[in-house]
Amino acid sequence: MNALDSLRSQLRSTATLASAASLLGWDEQTYMPPAGGPFRAEQQGMLAGMIHGRQTDPRVGAWLAELEGSGLDPDSAEAALVREVRRDFDLATKLPQRLVEELSEVTSLAQQAWVAARKANDFAAFEPHLTKIVALKREEAAALSEGRSLADPYDALLDQYEAHATTAEVAEVFENLRPPLVTLVADIADRGRANDAGVLTRSYPVDVQRTLGEAAAAAIGFDFDAGRLDVTAHPFCTDIGPGDVRLTTRYDERFFPMAFFGTLHEAGHGLYEQGLPHDAFGTPLGQAASLGVHESQSRMWENLVGRSRAFWGHWFPQAQAAFPGALGDVDEDAFYRTINRVEPSFIRVEADEVTYNLHVMLRFDLERKLIGGDLAVADLPAAWDETFRDYFGITPPDVSQGCLQDVHWSAGLIGYFPTYALGNIYASQLFEAAKTEIGDLERGFAEGDYRPLLDWLRENVHTHGRRFAPAELVERVTGRPLESDSLLNHLHTKYSGVYGI
Amino acid sequence: MNALDSLRSQLRSTATLASAASLLGWDEQTYMPPAGGPFRAEQQGMLAGMIHGRQTDPRVGAWLAELEGSGLDPDSAEAALVREVRRDFDLATKLPQRLVEELSEVTSLAQQAWVAARKANDFAAFEPHLTKIVALKREEAAALSEGRSLADPYDALLDQYEAHATTAEVAEVFENLRPPLVTLVADIADRGRANDAGVLTRSYPVDVQRTLGEAAAAAIGFDFDAGRLDVTAHPFCTDIGPGDVRLTTRYDERFFPMAFFGTLHEAGHGLYEQGLPHDAFGTPLGQAASLGVHESQSRMWENLVGRSRAFWGHWFPQAQAAFPGALGDVDEDAFYRTINRVEPSFIRVEADEVTYNLHVMLRFDLERKLIGGDLAVADLPAAWDETFRDYFGITPPDVSQGCLQDVHWSAGLIGYFPTYALGNIYASQLFEAAKTEIGDLERGFAEGDYRPLLDWLRENVHTHGRRFAPAELVERVTGRPLESDSLLNHLHTKYSGVYGI
Repeated sequence: MNALDSLRSQLRSTATLASAASLLGWDEQTYMPPAGGPFRAEQQGMLAGMIHGRQTDPRVGAWLAELEGSGLDPDSAEAALVREVRRDFDLATKLPQRLVEELSEVTSLAQQAWVAARKANDFAAFEPHLTKIVALKREEAAALSEGRSLADPYDALLDQYEAHATTAEVAEVFENLRPPLVTLVADIADRGRANDAGVLTRSYPVDVQRTLGEAAAAAIGFDFDAGRLDVTAHPFCTDIGPGDVRLTTRYDERFFPMAFFGTLHEAGHGLYEQGLPHDAFGTPLGQAASLGVHESQSRMWENLVGRSRAFWGHWFPQAQAAFPGALGDVDEDAFYRTINRVEPSFIRVEADEVTYNLHVMLRFDLERKLIGGDLAVADLPAAWDETFRDYFGITPPDVSQGCLQDVHWSAGLIGYFPTYALGNIYASQLFEAAKTEIGDLERGFAEGDYRPLLDWLRENVHTHGRRFAPAELVERVTGRPLESDSLLNHLHTKYSGVYGI
Repeated sequence: MNALDSLRSQLRSTATLASAASLLGWDEQTYMPPAGGPFRAEQQGMLAGMIHGRQTDPRVGAWLAELEGSGLDPDSAEAALVREVRRDFDLATKLPQRLVEELSEVTSLAQQAWVAARKANDFAAFEPHLTKIVALKREEAAALSEGRSLADPYDALLDQYEAHATTAEVAEVFENLRPPLVTLVADIADRGRANDAGVLTRSYPVDVQRTLGEAAAAAIGFDFDAGRLDVTAHPFCTDIGPGDVRLTTRYDERFFPMAFFGTLHEAGHGLYEQGLPHDAFGTPLGQAASLGVHESQSRMWENLVGRSRAFWGHWFPQAQAAFPGALGDVDEDAFYRTINRVEPSFIRVEADEVTYNLHVMLRFDLERKLIGGDLAVADLPAAWDETFRDYFGITPPDVSQGCLQDVHWSAGLIGYFPTYALGNIYASQLFEAAKTEIGDLERGFAEGDYRPLLDWLRENVHTHGRRFAPAELVERVTGRPLESDSLLNHLHTKYSGVYGI
């Protein structure tokens, strides 16, 4: 075998082992009995070590060196593969195996503790776990920063999730976004038109919610022969392997939007995974471009499609038939305004399109401080509440609606949150380009036809894998550099209509 | 680390990897979407190869050699551990890694094909898979026979599942069992007392079946905090790891016994797994003594407990309350006789206690011929039907009720079936000993108290793991060598009562 084939084969077998770890993770969140937790943590630690050992195999370095000297066309897919594997290899070799295994074990236990702590509203039960995680992530940041001139220890963590993004750039984008968002929220509050959310908290039987949610996910193109939908405390999408992409959601009989838009959101992630080239499984060309680009797909289907007026032209009659008790007396327009109600609230994943990015900025601020050593874990609940008041003018009633609401930190995902806001920005810019190229997308939505948009995304985004860096991909596809104007334009246009501003 | 600690550590980490493969297998049968099949097969092949590589690691041979020369007390637990690891190591090193991986891939695909073929009643669709499997198992038997003087190539396969048992011995036991069984079946047929099975095919809503089955499994001691129950085409019990034992069953709304006794059966396996010493996980001292001993536990709880008159003294009122439509007009005694109806039938897992062993003998005969080269796979359906007529006097109406009914051959499990009959023999002998030692077990059953029996099994069987060979274990516990008299006595006593013979 030549170096390229050897590298591809090694990447595929490593991904095949990692996929076993993915299933163990999925199972831990879905079906594992509670007493299986400690052993599962030990098992995940061992597998993480084995995977890391393969990722840092010196033969990978040798194959890369050979390929880098082989004169590949720099614009070829092969050159992109080599460039991205080099990036992964350099990142992975900087992390000692001991740290990788320890993080995996600590976070496996921490996620179990988080589920219990959130349920019990008990930050103290989670605090020792998070303290360990922050210490390990600071160690990780230091290890990843070696030999690079990074301005901020947080840079090294952020860059793992969003390649080439820096803390300073993200902070600047967020600073630009915040004032117009705050103004828009204030303008909306001044209007306060009738879009009573009481309709959404009527009784929506869970079985019917599941049926409707699965129908919507299938309608936008999610292939249930190659995937499934289960229930977890925190929804996610995980790629188990070619032909096997799993979504999860959570149901509240008394709150319709959570599961429905949550399912569309995860199905958006799932469509991206199902659209990646299977023959490149395990290599960068078969992987998502970045978390931000991943989130652009979920947010596009959740919000730009799923919360559009045209979408409900098709789905409202079906929802009304499914929930005659809850929606029989509701007007389609009023329903549309209700699911687009803008209001400061406590839970990020239930936040509206306008306030959502403020939730992300809050987490970005706090985790930078945790990593920078400017905030002790014990002080996190107070700092959360204080920042929350600054941004939203309200205070969370308890930690389960405050700093314990997200799974991320318990899973060691620090530096991850900003990718959500980047996802919104990418999504708006890509969606604007799709509309320009395809024409009247809304007309299809009104008839339940999403194929033109999905085909466009498959061709312009999904099929490329990690061939292009996120910012490069967006610029290639839209013809414009990354900017937040599309997002602000979208929000202003839409909410002028909804609120008559 | 000394050799013993090194060996223990290696065994535990190998078992931890194998446990990931167990979860992949469980998932394949329960929740995996169909399109995930081909990749799952590739993945299981790779993991099987990695596990085999660890099991045959030359360091294991070196540690064993050191320990074998270290003068361990031959009656100690440590000496038993070394003896059993040596056995595993010698068996594993005889199998080429290529064969192990090929078998794993072929059987992963074959199991998927079997599900479809059984559903479609289409032997031809399964035949090429079974042809490959038989060829690979013959290759396996030849490899395992090297350097041993085995009388029959089937010996090498049988011995994998029931240590030290030989084809000739098993054939002799079966030949001794068959005539009295045939006589008993004939005596029962002559009586034909009223125990109309029509009651059992009334409507039993699946949700209520599940609730009742889980209640019964929990009542006999299965810990649902450390296990779960799901639905699969073919029921099984799998040990995912310490604190995680999973049962499966299948429901037929129109046939009550299938899921209820199936659940008790798998829970019996599960009780054994939950009773093995967790601190010895991965080593022979933390593993079941043999498949036959495993089956003795499942059959004991399914039949000797679950189909006893005393058991239904407690459970019949609950079943009646759960299924008022089906059981409201049924008498407790009549119900007891109905669930103990003896009649030749097609499906092994639904067979009564008396005819069950005839089903096993049929499979034992046919798979010996397949492995011996005396029967072509293409001729299997005809041979099945002919032997079935010889044993039962009736002919299966189709292959799904004939040679396609069991998952075993599709999973490469050849040499496995005889352990079911051995399980019945062990179960009766152990149960007789328990009654002698504890006294009136039935009195507890009538009150829903199974703890004395479970405690006795924990102490006398479960806690020993593989410390003793199966026949030795039975003799130590019961004070008598292995014999089938207990089984025949039990059947004669019970069915004299049921049928008034």
